[in-house]
Amino acid sequence: MQTRLCGTTKQVLIEGTTPLVIIGESINPTRRKRLIETLQAGDFSYVEQLARSQIDEGADVLDINVGIAGGDEVTLLPQVVKFIAERFDVPLCLDCTIPKALAAALAVAPGKPLVNSVNGEERSLNAVLPIVKEYGAAVIGLTIDDTGIPKDVAKRMAIAEKIIERAGRLGIPADDVIIDPLAMAVGADDQAGVVTLQTIAQVRREFRVNVTCGGGNVSFGLPDRHTVNQAFLVSAMAMGLTCAITDPVKLASTIRATDLMLGRDGYASRYIRYWRAHKPKVDA
Amino acid sequence: MQTRLCGTTKQVLIEGTTPLVIIGESINPTRRKRLIETLQAGDFSYVEQLARSQIDEGADVLDINVGIAGGDEVTLLPQVVKFIAERFDVPLCLDCTIPKALAAALAVAPGKPLVNSVNGEERSLNAVLPIVKEYGAAVIGLTIDDTGIPKDVAKRMAIAEKIIERAGRLGIPADDVIIDPLAMAVGADDQAGVVTLQTIAQVRREFRVNVTCGGGNVSFGLPDRHTVNQAFLVSAMAMGLTCAITDPVKLASTIRATDLMLGRDGYASRYIRYWRAHKPKVDA
Repeated sequence: MQTRLCGTTKQVLIEGTTPLVIIGESINPTRRKRLIETLQAGDFSYVEQLARSQIDEGADVLDINVGIAGGDEVTLLPQVVKFIAERFDVPLCLDCTIPKALAAALAVAPGKPLVNSVNGEERSLNAVLPIVKEYGAAVIGLTIDDTGIPKDVAKRMAIAEKIIERAGRLGIPADDVIIDPLAMAVGADDQAGVVTLQTIAQVRREFRVNVTCGGGNVSFGLPDRHTVNQAFLVSAMAMGLTCAITDPVKLASTIRATDLMLGRDGYASRYIRYWRAHKPKVDA
Repeated sequence: MQTRLCGTTKQVLIEGTTPLVIIGESINPTRRKRLIETLQAGDFSYVEQLARSQIDEGADVLDINVGIAGGDEVTLLPQVVKFIAERFDVPLCLDCTIPKALAAALAVAPGKPLVNSVNGEERSLNAVLPIVKEYGAAVIGLTIDDTGIPKDVAKRMAIAEKIIERAGRLGIPADDVIIDPLAMAVGADDQAGVVTLQTIAQVRREFRVNVTCGGGNVSFGLPDRHTVNQAFLVSAMAMGLTCAITDPVKLASTIRATDLMLGRDGYASRYIRYWRAHKPKVDA
């Protein structure tokens, strides 16, 4: 399957046979004090800086999350979306679970954005999917429902299937549903990684839709989180991940090397081009 | 299947459900000038240092390769094997293709060593397997034969099957055959990585024997080789690699993180223990 996203001018195809599509995660106030403060002040210069640095490192899509304490996402999200769209051509990923804010942002977003996210809860399915359909967007479906995040692969598969099915009923094609099988902290549950990895492989095999995963939750609470995040991302790519919500500033060289390993980089040209442009400070 | 190896006292089981078994690769003169010079001088102090540093970082088995220009492996290999066995308790992996040198080393090696390697060529099968059987060793089988290293998975599978079958005819059980599907340079052939990864998965699925892979060939000729080697090793583990001939000094933290990701590290205790002992110089 193929998910086509569009920004103001740039089109991005997520399809699995091409290099991993990088959804830059950094425009997200969680643990980013400077972003919180500047957003609260209505100053978007830092947002611009985060957008530029991620695109420079290879972000294909930008995730936009403006959830701050006391903030009004219904006003703020469309403002930031317009601000980014006036300056950058990449597709946007609207990271918000408030239906009104999503609708307001989708109304001003360029091209064909991605909505992050719907999940298997009835309330979420009923509120988010009609908006996704109305604006012709694509959507990320999280494998969580009213009973929480299942510990086993079969139940996560059942939620994924439910989301795809419910989207289909509204006329959203499976091409436009990207499943996120949710990577939880392996420091809290030592089976959390393998369950997610197996779900990735099984979703790709059985439903053939695109699969994404979020950033660094998997390493939460552990020392040397970067090494754990690397291990997760590379394993997930080997199991069939087709796009990732991640930090290209930290992980682009690993992603390029893994695309090369998976046979998606003819003549290693993307890997070498990235290295020439960035020369990471490591041994050659 | 389960490959049981023994050193003077230490037993190592390779079985796939436990953390990756690390076969330390560093006692190998290729591109190690100091090792060549000290071996030529009959001085084994550097060998001892390489053995200790690898065991300290988590090597479960030590690969021993003493192939130097003008050297006599029939004499040198058993000497070094005895030297190591008197000082360290881990199983040894005798890395040599000269049948006489292998026989001489196996005659003095402690416990149950691993022979690295036989391949699918008639000459190799006929010369190496009877020695492996005679000394009750285990053996690594490379997926190469008289026609070279096949470019496709099916032909590598056929060679693996042939090696397992020929070993079986001599009474060497499949438990004692470890297949190495050969990782070639992705810089020279951009499909080299994916063919090897797919062979790993298929050997595990169809033959269920253990699978290993050698070290850094995959990154040959590329910049930032460490990132490429990491990407390969993590991908290979995700695809089912059960042991690796690698450098634990460089890659142990990545291996520990990946074992954790694959659900083979209860309570993340191995990962955390390693980090406490080594505190890699990276961000926590």
